[in-house]
Amino acid sequence: VRAIVLSIGKELVTGLRLDTHSADIARALVAIGINVLRHETVDDNAGAIEAALRRAGAETDLIIATGGLGPTLDDCTRDGLAQAMGVSLELDAEAIAHLESWAKARGRTVSESNRRQAYLPRGCQALPNPIGTACGILGRVGGAQVYCMPGVPGEMALMLRQEVLARLQAAAPGYVTVVRTLRTFGLPESILGEQLADLMVIGRRPHVGTAVHGGMIDIHVYAAGQPAEVADLLEADAQIIRQRLGDKVFAEDGQELEEVVAGLLAARRATVAVAESVTGGLVAAKLVNVPGMSEHLLEGVVAYSNESKVRRLGVAEELIESHGAVSEPVVRAMAESVRRATGADFGLADTGIAGPDGGSPEKPVGTVWMAVSDARGTEAVKEVITGDRALVRERAANYLLNMLRLRLIEPRP
Amino acid sequence: VRAIVLSIGKELVTGLRLDTHSADIARALVAIGINVLRHETVDDNAGAIEAALRRAGAETDLIIATGGLGPTLDDCTRDGLAQAMGVSLELDAEAIAHLESWAKARGRTVSESNRRQAYLPRGCQALPNPIGTACGILGRVGGAQVYCMPGVPGEMALMLRQEVLARLQAAAPGYVTVVRTLRTFGLPESILGEQLADLMVIGRRPHVGTAVHGGMIDIHVYAAGQPAEVADLLEADAQIIRQRLGDKVFAEDGQELEEVVAGLLAARRATVAVAESVTGGLVAAKLVNVPGMSEHLLEGVVAYSNESKVRRLGVAEELIESHGAVSEPVVRAMAESVRRATGADFGLADTGIAGPDGGSPEKPVGTVWMAVSDARGTEAVKEVITGDRALVRERAANYLLNMLRLRLIEPRP
Repeated sequence: VRAIVLSIGKELVTGLRLDTHSADIARALVAIGINVLRHETVDDNAGAIEAALRRAGAETDLIIATGGLGPTLDDCTRDGLAQAMGVSLELDAEAIAHLESWAKARGRTVSESNRRQAYLPRGCQALPNPIGTACGILGRVGGAQVYCMPGVPGEMALMLRQEVLARLQAAAPGYVTVVRTLRTFGLPESILGEQLADLMVIGRRPHVGTAVHGGMIDIHVYAAGQPAEVADLLEADAQIIRQRLGDKVFAEDGQELEEVVAGLLAARRATVAVAESVTGGLVAAKLVNVPGMSEHLLEGVVAYSNESKVRRLGVAEELIESHGAVSEPVVRAMAESVRRATGADFGLADTGIAGPDGGSPEKPVGTVWMAVSDARGTEAVKEVITGDRALVRERAANYLLNMLRLRLIEPRP
Repeated sequence: VRAIVLSIGKELVTGLRLDTHSADIARALVAIGINVLRHETVDDNAGAIEAALRRAGAETDLIIATGGLGPTLDDCTRDGLAQAMGVSLELDAEAIAHLESWAKARGRTVSESNRRQAYLPRGCQALPNPIGTACGILGRVGGAQVYCMPGVPGEMALMLRQEVLARLQAAAPGYVTVVRTLRTFGLPESILGEQLADLMVIGRRPHVGTAVHGGMIDIHVYAAGQPAEVADLLEADAQIIRQRLGDKVFAEDGQELEEVVAGLLAARRATVAVAESVTGGLVAAKLVNVPGMSEHLLEGVVAYSNESKVRRLGVAEELIESHGAVSEPVVRAMAESVRRATGADFGLADTGIAGPDGGSPEKPVGTVWMAVSDARGTEAVKEVITGDRALVRERAANYLLNMLRLRLIEPRP
């Protein structure tokens, strides 16, 4: 079964609001083995909706649409669907009964604007909406079954589960699509692509693809088929990737880097303290976003000014004077000092130039020194990160968390 | 000019990742008077990309595409565009020169997979990418000019601004759509909607709409027409909104809350220090993301554990024992202590329960105490924030920044 997902709304097509429904619906469809061809987002006028439905109806077996089923005049999915089907709107007995019982439960009568919601294209079926006035609609355009759902998030989610997915699953065989995601840190995409070139050949089963964000690369492995066979296929690829990329793979179940680090800290009952300059609190904020970190993150210090590095962290003033605040001796002193002051097992530190100003020929914008200190010593590295201020800080924070991760998975003597 | 926005990627079409580029691009296009017909999200195979480009090229004047320009085999936007144009791929002199200088700066040579990125459809023009290996591509399919940009967020944003919008604006007539955004903090959407009901009537010019995120509500006012007339229309609405909402409006030019706060700190040459518990570094991280904050943010302390509150901030242990860590006396002590220790003009602090665990009937998950301290005294407030862990922390950070903003704009004696 092939599907097209359709989102309807002026606020979506103009970008004033982010469409999250299409991704949610696509994931749900993919999970039951449906092949999602594309998403479309269109304006809420009947002509645009009609055109989108006709285009999709000529290409696919299934159309899942959201939005435009409300009571106001700018809600015209009903009209667009009727035009695409070449039929008129007529009062639907089930839909008007729903509106009447809804109004009665609130001691009201059905308003004129709500009454519009009971007019469905002739030959369509109303889909119940237990938590709102807008019924869904099941119709057909071209070769495709069309499900229309309201755009209100809670109503959409409930109707998707109870009406749409329930019907599709009942009609579907035991065929599923499963995605396994291996997240990596520390390899450029071109190198990673070369190491996995044989897996990424177009048309191979499973399909292997990559996506980059925040300096990290996710490897998605997709396969469709019978559940047991698919599980074997994915595990075989995951093993190959794990073998080739080693400790570059930090998660296999969708965890964020900070969740992996938090898990390792918990497993080793280890504690950490952070002294941040260029990341300005971002490393601590990421760790704190994992529940239960209060036992492991002893303290964070945002020592953004030189004064704070000296007074709060006890970095010697002459170190900063002779080497500059963005230097190996200073980042080492920061990591060691925050570890010593708190008694943590690990001390993390960073200092760098996020830009847009402050760069020099020897220390261009993006230069970041990062350090991890523990009982065995202190390791410091320099990276020159390209990107704007926010990106430099995001990547530096991830880099530092990954340094801690690598320390935590090292075999201990 | 009519445009279609195209996002390319299997991770997008299957819903594994949320497409945020289409909305960002649509907003930018609408702002310069371009009519966005629809967005499409398609799979990263050459056939799907070719079909989408042909479909769009037959309907529109402009196609803005993102994704599929990376070095790996699943990046096939170049192939899809070549097929839609009916031409072959050939080595582009500008693109290969860019890759060579990129590799040289890193002491490497151009890898085989990166080399693929320099093959563009014949007759296309490379668009420079100063922060990545993927050049953009400018081509033509049917009646439409086609801009292809990389999907990597920072690279896309920069190329959109520097290459795409700059060219489109230069070519545009004197007809514009202007969006004026007034950002507000501290009013529920229903109250705000009632206060602006007469402005938000459908069909009114300018169009006034709202969008909610991170506990803040943006009011978008948009009008199309000749620049001078549009400017007058928008200014008239902005004045009405300003009068009705007063200091709830914190920005009118797209600034983030932390940028407004940083501007106020700079104007008053004031300094601040932050003691964060529930926000775990997020407040400092937001402030540090504004360039030049090192003079104003004296220090941040992430005192997530009780021990750290006592040892580092000098909060009396009996305060925590008798009132709990999430309490008014503790948040006051934190704000006063961090201000005193650093000599800052303002001390900020927060402590709360982000969840999912740790709530109780008297202090449910989402309970957050926040305080601002200065020479005139300390103000503490409690909010119970609904939402998941990340949302509670994001809203608390914004709430605390807004408390500081309100202090900074108070008339001084």
